[in-house]
Amino acid sequence: MKNNIPKHTHIISDIKYKGDLPNIEKNMDDAINEINELHVIKKFKYLFNPYGISLFYVLAESHISIHTWEEYQSINIDCFTCGKTNPEKTLNAFLKKINILDENRQIIKRGI
Amino acid sequence: MKNNIPKHTHIISDIKYKGDLPNIEKNMDDAINEINELHVIKKFKYLFNPYGISLFYVLAESHISIHTWEEYQSINIDCFTCGKTNPEKTLNAFLKKINILDENRQIIKRGI
Repeated sequence: MKNNIPKHTHIISDIKYKGDLPNIEKNMDDAINEINELHVIKKFKYLFNPYGISLFYVLAESHISIHTWEEYQSINIDCFTCGKTNPEKTLNAFLKKINILDENRQIIKRGI
Repeated sequence: MKNNIPKHTHIISDIKYKGDLPNIEKNMDDAINEINELHVIKKFKYLFNPYGISLFYVLAESHISIHTWEEYQSINIDCFTCGKTNPEKTLNAFLKKINILDENRQIIKRGI
């Protein structure tokens, strides 16, 4: 057993957007491709009725999750990456594509 | 648009376990059923080679994610639930089923 697991970075980004819900999947796909630091293994999506999307990216580095709340024009994003990888560039590239009113960001170091 | 979105609860639990990796999926399924407060819509799982599991529960209330790091005998758990739902009872029921050496827990209020 190795003892010194590197600390992971978990960025929580809760946002309020203006106007209609943006295409979160296309915008996140584009941001990941542009920054080219995260490795997507698989995507999962669930569409709630009448609205609401839960979108998950399984990464080699852990995961990204996105939940939309159209009734509040709000989106909750988690970018959790292991070791030295920092997902902040990808998150910032994603946010630039969206018409943001406000963001509450928390950066958490995690591991044990 | 509603303005007053209730704050969400996000519990981050990073643990070190003793012995072999426990059956995380069965133990979490059992914990969810026992406590009976979270509503699972769908589960997704990805198995890494040679080891490592990423397991996601899409909940009506948001999600649970679990990543295992057998090389460090470590598990990273996220329980993210919207509104008034608190996932702590379910998380505690899960941890009781596992041979835990240590836990680092962070409770985060989120939303905007």
